[in-house]
Amino acid sequence: MPTVTFLPGFHKADVPRGATILDAAQRAGLHVNVVCGGQGRCGKCVVYLKSGKITFDREKFGHFFTAEELDRGACLACQSLVRNDLRVEVPASSLVQEQKILVESRAAEIPFRPSVRKYSLELTPPSLTDTTPDITRLLEGIEAQGGPAANKIYAPLEVLRSVPQLLRQGGWRVTGTVALVPGGYRLIKVEEGNTEGRLYGAAVDLGTTTIVVYLWDLATASVIATASNYNRQIGYGEDILSRVNFARKNGLSKLQRLAAESINQALTAAANNAGIDREDIHEVVVAGNTVMTHLLLCIDPGYMIAEPYVPVVRRMLSTAAGRIGLAVHRNAGVYTFPAVSNFIGGDIIADILACGMTEREEISLLIDIGTNFEVVIGNRDWMLSCAGAAGPALEGGEVLFGMRANPGAMEKVRIDGGTLKPTYETINRVRPKGICGSGLIDLLAELIRACVIDRNGHINMGIRHPRVRQGRYFPEFVIAWADETDGERDIVITENDIKNLIMSKAAILGACMTLMDAAGITREDLAGIYFSGAFGNYLNKENAIAVGLIPEVPLDAVKNIGNGAITGANLALISRDRRRNLDRIAQQITYIELNAEPSFMDQYTSSCFLPHTDLSLFPGVQRVLDECRIRYGGAE
Amino acid sequence: MPTVTFLPGFHKADVPRGATILDAAQRAGLHVNVVCGGQGRCGKCVVYLKSGKITFDREKFGHFFTAEELDRGACLACQSLVRNDLRVEVPASSLVQEQKILVESRAAEIPFRPSVRKYSLELTPPSLTDTTPDITRLLEGIEAQGGPAANKIYAPLEVLRSVPQLLRQGGWRVTGTVALVPGGYRLIKVEEGNTEGRLYGAAVDLGTTTIVVYLWDLATASVIATASNYNRQIGYGEDILSRVNFARKNGLSKLQRLAAESINQALTAAANNAGIDREDIHEVVVAGNTVMTHLLLCIDPGYMIAEPYVPVVRRMLSTAAGRIGLAVHRNAGVYTFPAVSNFIGGDIIADILACGMTEREEISLLIDIGTNFEVVIGNRDWMLSCAGAAGPALEGGEVLFGMRANPGAMEKVRIDGGTLKPTYETINRVRPKGICGSGLIDLLAELIRACVIDRNGHINMGIRHPRVRQGRYFPEFVIAWADETDGERDIVITENDIKNLIMSKAAILGACMTLMDAAGITREDLAGIYFSGAFGNYLNKENAIAVGLIPEVPLDAVKNIGNGAITGANLALISRDRRRNLDRIAQQITYIELNAEPSFMDQYTSSCFLPHTDLSLFPGVQRVLDECRIRYGGAE
Repeated sequence: MPTVTFLPGFHKADVPRGATILDAAQRAGLHVNVVCGGQGRCGKCVVYLKSGKITFDREKFGHFFTAEELDRGACLACQSLVRNDLRVEVPASSLVQEQKILVESRAAEIPFRPSVRKYSLELTPPSLTDTTPDITRLLEGIEAQGGPAANKIYAPLEVLRSVPQLLRQGGWRVTGTVALVPGGYRLIKVEEGNTEGRLYGAAVDLGTTTIVVYLWDLATASVIATASNYNRQIGYGEDILSRVNFARKNGLSKLQRLAAESINQALTAAANNAGIDREDIHEVVVAGNTVMTHLLLCIDPGYMIAEPYVPVVRRMLSTAAGRIGLAVHRNAGVYTFPAVSNFIGGDIIADILACGMTEREEISLLIDIGTNFEVVIGNRDWMLSCAGAAGPALEGGEVLFGMRANPGAMEKVRIDGGTLKPTYETINRVRPKGICGSGLIDLLAELIRACVIDRNGHINMGIRHPRVRQGRYFPEFVIAWADETDGERDIVITENDIKNLIMSKAAILGACMTLMDAAGITREDLAGIYFSGAFGNYLNKENAIAVGLIPEVPLDAVKNIGNGAITGANLALISRDRRRNLDRIAQQITYIELNAEPSFMDQYTSSCFLPHTDLSLFPGVQRVLDECRIRYGGAE
Repeated sequence: MPTVTFLPGFHKADVPRGATILDAAQRAGLHVNVVCGGQGRCGKCVVYLKSGKITFDREKFGHFFTAEELDRGACLACQSLVRNDLRVEVPASSLVQEQKILVESRAAEIPFRPSVRKYSLELTPPSLTDTTPDITRLLEGIEAQGGPAANKIYAPLEVLRSVPQLLRQGGWRVTGTVALVPGGYRLIKVEEGNTEGRLYGAAVDLGTTTIVVYLWDLATASVIATASNYNRQIGYGEDILSRVNFARKNGLSKLQRLAAESINQALTAAANNAGIDREDIHEVVVAGNTVMTHLLLCIDPGYMIAEPYVPVVRRMLSTAAGRIGLAVHRNAGVYTFPAVSNFIGGDIIADILACGMTEREEISLLIDIGTNFEVVIGNRDWMLSCAGAAGPALEGGEVLFGMRANPGAMEKVRIDGGTLKPTYETINRVRPKGICGSGLIDLLAELIRACVIDRNGHINMGIRHPRVRQGRYFPEFVIAWADETDGERDIVITENDIKNLIMSKAAILGACMTLMDAAGITREDLAGIYFSGAFGNYLNKENAIAVGLIPEVPLDAVKNIGNGAITGANLALISRDRRRNLDRIAQQITYIELNAEPSFMDQYTSSCFLPHTDLSLFPGVQRVLDECRIRYGGAE
């Protein structure tokens, strides 16, 4: 079998001819990004071929790369078939290491007490003077090992039936797996011999687009593999609404199956990667939004999209993996996160767990930004939440050169206040194609600092500079000339783009302000602002405050928790105490419907400035703007 | 359709031509004995045709009757097909009324609090200002009706999935069925509209030979039907040992299926009789011996019959009816009684519940006699038990004219001390064929009172009387001359028969004495002796004491609880408190292995006299014997 060597770490894996470089990377223990599930769609798994021969369709996948990149051997790991021994370089940007470090650092803060445990037993065989029944002998053995009291453990019939033979075949040395379940304990498996070392659990972030799986060795308290996959329901609608509509038209069981299959593919990849048997996975915790949770459990989500918009269930549910088609041990418990409302789902509860805001007395603000945004404010005693549509601008929609965070997107932008020359960084460092969310926030902040735009977002057409010009419909600013780009046009931002961006950011700031008002607190009371989700990953905190996306707080109080859904799912998997609290947390949160809250409109309108109508709320930003005006601009 | 009228009560039923009289009786609400399940084997369902036309095979089933009986219109209800309108007389002996009265009187003593309850709800529909999820709305509705707290009720996925549609189809008027289960409560069913009136439960006595079912209306606290069936496992062995051996040879799942089917047939008969849908049966409680319980649950009983004789499980088990093929609602909980040992099974725990001995401070003795016997002694604080083989004599085996309690068996016998002329009653009042257990005990007692036999059981051949004679091998006493009988021979009891009977009764008395000794009590400490099982039904208490089958106590302290297994199952069905206590009761009972108990042999030997070597233990009997000796006999 050919050997694939991965640089810079010299990880090696032997794979059959015809396997993908991605397969090889997984065997070598490298966590390569596969957001699209290895379909060649997301362009995240870029690697560089240094030596050896592969099969890779440059015609079909060339659009992910510049000619120069291709010359350097760029290819997609998921679409490159191994022909002989290879040496492959994996850029750091293709690895999913950061989230893992976030998960592990947060997990290290809390006591490791999973809900499922194995007990390896060496039982005294029965004798004429000790005719204790098999099950009692087993359960009392578990109790003697520090497990729960024998009479508190429920043994389901199917497990019970297997016990007598296992005990005797195993010479009275067996391992019992016991799970803490609602109302008590459950014996979920009995095996011959000592299998204490084979106890795994999975945390799942069931996103509308992407699924992320973390595989834990619950015996050694460590993450042993991660995997991601796209949610295969996407074929039946990109957004939640179209999924619900498909479910209503008799598509519910199909969407259920696709959710389970998508998770199973990721579980299989992770299990193969870690070299474990999926049958040894004894617990699964799933964090997903309210609709995704309904779909995974095959519960009709249709009532959520028609008046009066009620879900079937909000509380944490538990079921056996076999009942929903998850490819782990059939008796493994599957736990889904509870929800607060249709819009504040299990993913947000997971965010809350991830940032630990309910564990502290200080007040925190949590913001999850995607096509929709969710905001939660509170501490260990109280919590308020709301949700809304941010509009597509922050994801690159309704912005002329806006794009998603894909290769070629400008993700960081600076503008020299004197020369107005922008400098930028693109994803994968290829020639720019457009600007993604974090780049757009940078751009807004830099344009106002350079006095190119005013606090209303109007471009100062009085500036005589080739980059400041009248476009076809709107005034615009040139960020990159055509010859710097991947295409044939100058990359610009128009006054209309800026208006759309301001409306998006105003919705978020307005929501934050509305919750703060409702709670009777000011920005000084905020001990921390947590960003969850991909948007926060590359966001420049200073610029986010400068444009008034979030309230002004000290910079080090703004923290990015990455994928909070997966972190929260991990914590609920490894801590029975954290999991036990979830329903209480969900019930504690008051949901504020922004559309029904009169003050929101005022807050929104006041936020439709850069950063806000009332500059006294952004004293730090005011100082900077004052300096800039003195240096670069005239009177306002 | 022909109408069948049953006398003497003028119950009527219309049935299709070709239906059996048994079918008609069930429709008319009469509880006719069908021990063999309507196979024409047991001869218990005797009725007399008064007018009309039936099809009945007199050739095939005539052996159950005398010619005179046949002339009077005797036939088996289960084998007689209705041709046109009939008038049929049902003798009291063909009805199963007595046990029902016993069950109902005992049930009336305890608070009616079944573990399963229905809650009819009229919920407020959701609105824009009240978007409580469907499940929460439902469970909070149950809580508001006095049910368990909403967050204590577990809703299984399959029930949960059905809720949104049911709520809306039912116009928010639904009925939820909630069961108390180990560790909490479980929502087992949701239905449209108000179905509070349709809540039924079944108590089952799963005997090795016979199955008895009681159907309760749990809404009105009443027994609505009873039914019995033979245990169809009989085809694979009459006794327990042969069943276990068949199970070991890959026959386990077959025996499981037969147990379930046998119960299902009885359940169906009872449900049809009561005119209810089996799907409305929401709970089943089963009392059976340890092997029968293993078989019903498809748990291997094989380890109980080989050294060191351990069962797989002794504690109370619960499972869903659907999992073991019971034809009631698939989510209905099925509860099996716990056991103390291989020999003191769930049937005996049910006996204990039935006689209420654990509820009192006074000490009781419980005796269940069949091929094997079980004895329990104790009160609310302590209990001892033992079991043994009584030998077949009391069931008519190893006795020349012994027979089971079938038609033609002498069940009561008296002997005139002066003339030695016996008078007797036979089952179904037909000509005698032999003697069953209760008749044999009578006979022993009467023979000793008449001084025909001495306390060793030897026939006094010095008596010159045609009934006292030397038989072919042994001395014998003639109970019925050939011309009184159904056959061509005199019905006699031989000295060898008497020896076998004494050994049988000595085993039982010896066991009682052994337990009393172990507990340090005497007969004066016994507040009651309870007989369970068919044997006790027709037993003459005075004679049972006279022959030393049981210790001497005042006659009114001896009580017959009939089928204690079914009574106990009924109590556990209708009282959650009684059911909760079962495991504790089972654990409280100390099992004494008679074979390992040196004192048992002494007690047995001392009991091999009529009534016992030490007459001071039977002072009342001694007085009677003294009188008899003076009146009829010479010096002993």
